[in-house]
Amino acid sequence: MVYHEEALDDIFVALAEPTRRQVIRRLGTGPASVGELAQPFSMTLPSFMKHVRTLESSGLIQTTKHGRVRTCTLNRERLALVDGWLADQRSLWESRTDRLETLVTQPKEPS
Amino acid sequence: MVYHEEALDDIFVALAEPTRRQVIRRLGTGPASVGELAQPFSMTLPSFMKHVRTLESSGLIQTTKHGRVRTCTLNRERLALVDGWLADQRSLWESRTDRLETLVTQPKEPS
Repeated sequence: MVYHEEALDDIFVALAEPTRRQVIRRLGTGPASVGELAQPFSMTLPSFMKHVRTLESSGLIQTTKHGRVRTCTLNRERLALVDGWLADQRSLWESRTDRLETLVTQPKEPS
Repeated sequence: MVYHEEALDDIFVALAEPTRRQVIRRLGTGPASVGELAQPFSMTLPSFMKHVRTLESSGLIQTTKHGRVRTCTLNRERLALVDGWLADQRSLWESRTDRLETLVTQPKEPS
């Protein structure tokens, strides 16, 4: 399975910051303008825009501009890459647990 | 719900690098020594140790030293924090979808 390694690098970097995670969270309830998204945070708009750009370049969000308003939308498919990666790790652990169970329940006969 | 925000910062930083993700993957099949883990990578041991330390300080892995051998073990509970965070985002989308469905299936009577 290909994990879109570069995409995952960018996605994990984007998620490694509480402001950006909070933006993702807010966008989970529907699209919002940059102004609305910035409101809960005590930072300048240029600082906030850096976070928006990091999220956008990771593909986790898309933005569109109409007049002066830039609207952000969550890209769930991109976040699903993280789900996919985690699911794959879990399948490795589970196959390991199965092997251990087989060893315990079907021990080799002493030779 | 508390997301262990600082823990998530460190975990996502740790996961934002293909070598470190490959180490996590390998440790999913069972504990391994630093030497074994380093083998597939064409980098010096000190460079590899930096990755091991980043993983260790994020809590994703634990290491123990016996004599000259440092053994690494995956800490699944720590990776489960990412699962928890993702599940929470999903529940937000789903509640939004439910609200949208209610709007579509039970439209307000025209007043």
